[in-house]
Amino acid sequence: MTNKRIVLASRPVGEPAPENFRTESVELPALQEGQVLLKTLYLSLDPYMRGRMSDGPSYAAPVGIGETIVGGTVCEVVESKAETLTTGDVVAAFVGWQEYAVVPAKGLRKLDPSLGPVSASLGVLGMPGMTAWSGLLLLGQPKAGETVVVGAAAGAVGSAVGQIAKIKGCRVVGIAGGPEKCAHVVNDLGFDACVDHRSPTLATGLKDACPGGIDVYFENVGGKVFEAVLPRMNDFGRIPVCGLISQYNATELPPGPDRSPLLMRAVLTKRLMLRGFIVTDFMPHWGDFQREMSEWVRSGRIAYREQVVEGLDNAVEAFIGLLRGRNTGKMLVKL
Amino acid sequence: MTNKRIVLASRPVGEPAPENFRTESVELPALQEGQVLLKTLYLSLDPYMRGRMSDGPSYAAPVGIGETIVGGTVCEVVESKAETLTTGDVVAAFVGWQEYAVVPAKGLRKLDPSLGPVSASLGVLGMPGMTAWSGLLLLGQPKAGETVVVGAAAGAVGSAVGQIAKIKGCRVVGIAGGPEKCAHVVNDLGFDACVDHRSPTLATGLKDACPGGIDVYFENVGGKVFEAVLPRMNDFGRIPVCGLISQYNATELPPGPDRSPLLMRAVLTKRLMLRGFIVTDFMPHWGDFQREMSEWVRSGRIAYREQVVEGLDNAVEAFIGLLRGRNTGKMLVKL
Repeated sequence: MTNKRIVLASRPVGEPAPENFRTESVELPALQEGQVLLKTLYLSLDPYMRGRMSDGPSYAAPVGIGETIVGGTVCEVVESKAETLTTGDVVAAFVGWQEYAVVPAKGLRKLDPSLGPVSASLGVLGMPGMTAWSGLLLLGQPKAGETVVVGAAAGAVGSAVGQIAKIKGCRVVGIAGGPEKCAHVVNDLGFDACVDHRSPTLATGLKDACPGGIDVYFENVGGKVFEAVLPRMNDFGRIPVCGLISQYNATELPPGPDRSPLLMRAVLTKRLMLRGFIVTDFMPHWGDFQREMSEWVRSGRIAYREQVVEGLDNAVEAFIGLLRGRNTGKMLVKL
Repeated sequence: MTNKRIVLASRPVGEPAPENFRTESVELPALQEGQVLLKTLYLSLDPYMRGRMSDGPSYAAPVGIGETIVGGTVCEVVESKAETLTTGDVVAAFVGWQEYAVVPAKGLRKLDPSLGPVSASLGVLGMPGMTAWSGLLLLGQPKAGETVVVGAAAGAVGSAVGQIAKIKGCRVVGIAGGPEKCAHVVNDLGFDACVDHRSPTLATGLKDACPGGIDVYFENVGGKVFEAVLPRMNDFGRIPVCGLISQYNATELPPGPDRSPLLMRAVLTKRLMLRGFIVTDFMPHWGDFQREMSEWVRSGRIAYREQVVEGLDNAVEAFIGLLRGRNTGKMLVKL
């Protein structure tokens, strides 16, 4: 049986280009005891994947040259040699950018399609949702009446962060790229305001949108967005650092002066807390997250949007677009 | 009765200079009910005072032009119109750079000279000791076997930080300016190692001294020292940000490139926690600190050194020297 997959052909320098990827057809290995043959239904595209394509030090080993690009997937079991799964089962897996995969059944999470769209397990009810929930609640610790600001507010993580913060009684301000995303964030997701980071008036817009300052800034972006946020942070503000998408394609440091003393001075005098995190650090809280988030989604308190691209062949272009901020909501490839 | 005091004549630009200060003789006001007349015995000199001489945003209001420079003091009660204090009592006060002061008795803390040198209430048993104790234990949360690094290790705060970390079972590495201070830190204070930040081999010296990486970095310094520390931080490392003495006299940002993305990237991928603090944030823990620290000092587990300058007229020069790193241990002016 033949499997089509996309492998890393070379490491991107700066923005990934199509030539950094190669599509291959390979024979699938024979199924062993305890394994299942999976067919990919949905592939999740997430900004963190850019980091895996580089070989600098990071929190996960990079994808090797010639290896399949990693990624979360929703798959259907085509054939099973495991007792726990049977043909037709739908599972959350992590088989990456390929049509089929032979993997151990252990580690797969069976999904119940009767509870809602299975694709949500890659978004609001999956890793991005858990990232938002854990980073905001466990690290940001927002209190009712406080102001929460989130970057990349129209993205899979940011949209969940803001809506959870609203549920917790906060004033919520998003930062997103362009008027359409900002309108979506306010009108569809219920944020109190949204500021366009492409606007020359980002700084004053943020000031106006946060008359009481900022207590929690959920950092997805870095760069200019962070620079605009920092002067508005209140004493004892918390900054969960989840991602830095504005920097992922950077090939060199920005020009001077060196602004890091401004950051350290703000941390000191405002007693700010910055804390980096990765969703996997919080896996012991997975059950709590699932319980709370699925209830919010079911009751309509949390809305989510998916942007679905059809066909594995379009994954590369969609991923490049994701890094350019072209998506609104969760970016998926449907196979 | 005439009082000699030192006031802020003008705001320093860069390093403070003698002309930024002015010595005055003024008449003391008459003693009111509930007040005491204090004679200053010791004046504490601390790096944070530099911040009070500027009028930029900070965590405390600046000293006004023409106002007495602030500072912690040990004073003797010369005359009392308060029931709680009597002539001859020795108190911890905050009357600043002057020989005498008339203040309300309320807010003064009576010292017991039989328990040890009263000057310690300005150092290891006072604000610098509490800064070390609270920042290290409450924010840094060092665990036995971890590596703790502290900047300005020969200073009043740093020397206490390292010794407390030793008591907690950590490997402790100091960073200090020059071979004499480094020898003091290792030989007199019992640190496991000390690296000279003036040495061109700071980075490799730190690497060699921390074979298991750094779990807690107690930040007193900023700049080059922080840059050397950051690459050595372990995952889930904690960085209590207590001070940035290398930057207090800066008049402009360092030249480029802008290194703040390196810091944010390290925070993200290593899941670092940075947290600024000021000792006064932790005042509810004062009793715990006093109990624990005084026992450690009494039993000889924590040593401290004082550098005493005689006479208020020498305070300005001593303060400028403090910012240049000329002191070892707690810097005091004896009046």
